[in-house]
Amino acid sequence: MSAWLLPDHIADVLPSEARHIEELRRGLLDTARCYGYELVMPPLLEHLESLLTGSGEALDLLTFKLVDQLSGRTLGLRGDTTQQVARIDAHLLNRRGVTRLCYCGSVLHTRPDRPHATREPLQFGAEIYGHAGLEAEIEALQLALHCLRGAPVADVSVDLADVRIVRSLLAGVPVDAQVLERVHAALAAKDASELAQLTRSFPVASREGLQALLQLYGGAEVLDEAEKRLGAVAGVARVLADLRSIAARLAQVRVSFDLADLRGYAYYSGLRFGMYVPGASDALVRGGRYDEVGAVFGRNRPAVGFSLDVKQLVAVARSRPLQAAIRAPWGDDALLNAEIAALRQQGQTVVCTLPGSGSEVDEFSCDRELVNVQGRWVVRAL
Amino acid sequence: MSAWLLPDHIADVLPSEARHIEELRRGLLDTARCYGYELVMPPLLEHLESLLTGSGEALDLLTFKLVDQLSGRTLGLRGDTTQQVARIDAHLLNRRGVTRLCYCGSVLHTRPDRPHATREPLQFGAEIYGHAGLEAEIEALQLALHCLRGAPVADVSVDLADVRIVRSLLAGVPVDAQVLERVHAALAAKDASELAQLTRSFPVASREGLQALLQLYGGAEVLDEAEKRLGAVAGVARVLADLRSIAARLAQVRVSFDLADLRGYAYYSGLRFGMYVPGASDALVRGGRYDEVGAVFGRNRPAVGFSLDVKQLVAVARSRPLQAAIRAPWGDDALLNAEIAALRQQGQTVVCTLPGSGSEVDEFSCDRELVNVQGRWVVRAL
Repeated sequence: MSAWLLPDHIADVLPSEARHIEELRRGLLDTARCYGYELVMPPLLEHLESLLTGSGEALDLLTFKLVDQLSGRTLGLRGDTTQQVARIDAHLLNRRGVTRLCYCGSVLHTRPDRPHATREPLQFGAEIYGHAGLEAEIEALQLALHCLRGAPVADVSVDLADVRIVRSLLAGVPVDAQVLERVHAALAAKDASELAQLTRSFPVASREGLQALLQLYGGAEVLDEAEKRLGAVAGVARVLADLRSIAARLAQVRVSFDLADLRGYAYYSGLRFGMYVPGASDALVRGGRYDEVGAVFGRNRPAVGFSLDVKQLVAVARSRPLQAAIRAPWGDDALLNAEIAALRQQGQTVVCTLPGSGSEVDEFSCDRELVNVQGRWVVRAL
Repeated sequence: MSAWLLPDHIADVLPSEARHIEELRRGLLDTARCYGYELVMPPLLEHLESLLTGSGEALDLLTFKLVDQLSGRTLGLRGDTTQQVARIDAHLLNRRGVTRLCYCGSVLHTRPDRPHATREPLQFGAEIYGHAGLEAEIEALQLALHCLRGAPVADVSVDLADVRIVRSLLAGVPVDAQVLERVHAALAAKDASELAQLTRSFPVASREGLQALLQLYGGAEVLDEAEKRLGAVAGVARVLADLRSIAARLAQVRVSFDLADLRGYAYYSGLRFGMYVPGASDALVRGGRYDEVGAVFGRNRPAVGFSLDVKQLVAVARSRPLQAAIRAPWGDDALLNAEIAALRQQGQTVVCTLPGSGSEVDEFSCDRELVNVQGRWVVRAL
């Protein structure tokens, strides 16, 4: 086996793509900062229990485990940053008021979470804690859209769902956890016969309501249809009204609804959203409300947020050309070195040609060179 | 055990320090870019053999291991990025000419590599491949100094050493690997009696030369003294001349020498340098020449580079105050929202006060607010 072979679904990021990812990273963090989101950097490694609390089996299977030789305990490599940020809000900051936090760092997965995905996404996300009102959902959606527009990514559409609809339909129905998981999977896969099979012992209203959800995807007309078919179920009318209010604040993008969509980790408690672009097969951004996420850390307060993988974003964002460089000779000439320093101070890239490798400077594309004209060093086009 | 407890020597980075680290990170990458260093992002996980090739036992002990469930092979979490960048130069880029690469990412250690150190340093580094001349060492030193000055860190001193001196003293002496390692450790610890014990069967010139090294640390006078005592040993005079040339190009900083210093990973093949500041107990920057590092990847070409831990740098770099924010009301008023968008476009942080949490916006320090004066939204000092 050659020493340079990498594991499957693990890759180096080479110069031009790395530069592009770095630019996107900065743009995302600066956009979040403009909205008042403070940056945090949780660690890559934590005790496994802290990483997996409340997130369900899906994340457990995605999480690499190893043993801490200092303590003998099992550690996990984070597969998602949301729990960590909730822990910071709950335990370390412990503020009374609204707290807005953002982050950008690698997460690792034992298996790619979709075909051709990397096992090392670069996760960027933003979270708003302490506000139960719809304003938090709207701000998260607007910030996520701002992030994508700034990338820039065009033609973004937003898909809205809400886990409270399924919860309302199942309220009071005794379902064991395994069956519930299979019901969620059948809804996500829109598998009507599997769903019928699983729910055959359910009360008729629940059974028919769940079946109805399979058809409830599309534009704003979905909400009208849902109102007609499910409006009488306790709690559903309120959720539909919330979805309407939120969609009304997203006038500039295409909004669709998929009331059966329950994919993703188990921590969502209300709105869920995904953002899509024509070129990408999967959602670029996923987010929503997960009010319970901080409970295990001793602080159960409202939480809304979203995340995206910068490595997925780079594939659909238009890259800006790298500023061309200036080639300069290597030497002890004080005037030359002062001029090089001044150009670098201005943000220019100045590449010194090392003696003996003159004709091989091809690593940065140089469109100018620093030359000595009558005792003065000047920049000249190549 | 509480869910919020982190493993020893693992910590969250909270807002103000995270912001500072992010600023330093950007400054370091931008400085390297100004010198023509291209950014690469190697993965956190690799096959263990690729990570540890040629680096010796020290790095092996620091490296977390885990099993890849896709292949059953052992993976390592990188404890150092140098090997990975050498692999990229050798195998992926495979250019004929000089290649300059830089990187900035987390590395993980099973044990802190000095007391109170984090087990998750944020390693920044730069490497220059394909140039055997001293210009490469000088450029690496100048770039590292530029990086520290830009942080900004004041009062930097540079310590120079060269592994070829010990190699010259041991040339032709049959020493087994374990003894050699203990000789290196005794030199690093300046342990004269241990060194005498280990070298008692060595030829007298080697034995006395190694003992002499223990005294050869200090200012430029060390080179004169070394010339006198070791100048006759084949190869040493050339190394001392190289050290003189390099020191002459570092006029603006205090330079010292420690000819017995061999700490660090085993891959160095020539110059080694460390950069120190008064407040820090350990070197902030370590670097040097490691021409053999790419050999295992099929390409044995000259290599010089350095690295530093941004989390260590943040403790000694002066931080810039965060720009204060503007507080704005939440609302559907189109003029208000246009004004907020325009301010954010200009790079201002605008924090919307969510309804019901009016008096609790304390997360960003706001020194201005957006208020409606006679139908127009204007920014007013608080």
